[in-house]
Amino acid sequence: MKYLIRLSYDGTDYCGWQMQKNGPSVQACVMDAIRGVFGSVTEFSGCSRTDSGVHALDFCASFRPAFDLPCEKIPVALNAKLPGNIAVKSARTVPDDFHARYSVKQKEYLYRIRTASVRDPFSENRVWHRPANYDLNALNQGASYLCGTHDFRSYMAAGSKIEDCTRTVFRAEFEQTEEELHFYVSADGFLYNMVRIMVGTLLEIPQRMPPEAILRILEAKDRSQSGMTAPACGLYLNRVVY
Amino acid sequence: MKYLIRLSYDGTDYCGWQMQKNGPSVQACVMDAIRGVFGSVTEFSGCSRTDSGVHALDFCASFRPAFDLPCEKIPVALNAKLPGNIAVKSARTVPDDFHARYSVKQKEYLYRIRTASVRDPFSENRVWHRPANYDLNALNQGASYLCGTHDFRSYMAAGSKIEDCTRTVFRAEFEQTEEELHFYVSADGFLYNMVRIMVGTLLEIPQRMPPEAILRILEAKDRSQSGMTAPACGLYLNRVVY
Repeated sequence: MKYLIRLSYDGTDYCGWQMQKNGPSVQACVMDAIRGVFGSVTEFSGCSRTDSGVHALDFCASFRPAFDLPCEKIPVALNAKLPGNIAVKSARTVPDDFHARYSVKQKEYLYRIRTASVRDPFSENRVWHRPANYDLNALNQGASYLCGTHDFRSYMAAGSKIEDCTRTVFRAEFEQTEEELHFYVSADGFLYNMVRIMVGTLLEIPQRMPPEAILRILEAKDRSQSGMTAPACGLYLNRVVY
Repeated sequence: MKYLIRLSYDGTDYCGWQMQKNGPSVQACVMDAIRGVFGSVTEFSGCSRTDSGVHALDFCASFRPAFDLPCEKIPVALNAKLPGNIAVKSARTVPDDFHARYSVKQKEYLYRIRTASVRDPFSENRVWHRPANYDLNALNQGASYLCGTHDFRSYMAAGSKIEDCTRTVFRAEFEQTEEELHFYVSADGFLYNMVRIMVGTLLEIPQRMPPEAILRILEAKDRSQSGMTAPACGLYLNRVVY
């Protein structure tokens, strides 16, 4: 049987999802836990790479273990072997041709910006603390230009080797809470650092650019036109749709 | 001038507020920051001791620095010298005879219990994960017996050398959120481990004891009658009233 598990993790202490030489990865922890429960595992894949320090509220991984277990027993069994900053929330079976990465139809990211002047000790490494007065309407006007099917080259890390930079953004929207600004963006796929460059650029509105600049930058297809890459700590993979 | 600052901190990495030989204390960090800004400081005091791993959403400390600063500048100046897991939220001046500990009229603690079956990676070390079905009405009936002026010896850590164990509890109440149970208790003062023993005892309702047992235990004035000491990680100093 092939299984899909949904996880959440605090990415602070990890080099990201993907196994790397430079530090502990979430993937290595999850594979170790699966091997600990099932002995061996094949066809293991995750829904995306996430950068060092990026978090997940809903990360998906699929695998085929050496034997089957009832789905409701899998989270308990794996969580007993995982560190406390990673949790398996649920498990279900999937068809043989399912692939956690290539079967994704839509992903949503959340980016948290703390707007209150004093930092919150409980959100250290979990928000971008950037106190300022924000104009929610202007931000959302800027974000609206990102919706639709576009070449997002201007919002991709310089040096990326991807040829086809066309993606479809379904939602790009800010919400204001008491002490934070939340940016939600969902798309059929994301380029390297795309969300973080979007956030770094959008937050220049309205002081350093008008909302319309977001469209102009998109059309320029030039990374040098967009803003800074927002820090990893504010970014969360929020939802994965198959 | 004498100042009162209000702080919040994540106590996970500290041996508590009080300076100790066995690890870093919040007090030492705050005193270092004050000395860094003001050069020297006298009459420094905190509103209470907190145990290792206990958190604060509202901790108060008073001090007299070598020179005066406008109150609104103090949080920014101190936060620049404090680690990210401690934040000064505000500062105000207080009368000469004010004492952060002895002038306290009322303190409120919050205890967070995670009731959902799967742990939350983002609340590791910040809640007691104790999945179960709780009876909110029964819990609140039990908690109600704690309100009023009583000898709380049964809810004090064994071996404490305090003679007068009479305290007045103003509020003792559970609230249910989607994934957590929150216990609020406010009093004119607390004995050592009092909140944690209250929580450890109350959560035996209704499976292991009826709500009325809380009153019976109170009247026994005997620590061996009450329940376990709940873990430090779920406890927050929530509000201090002068």
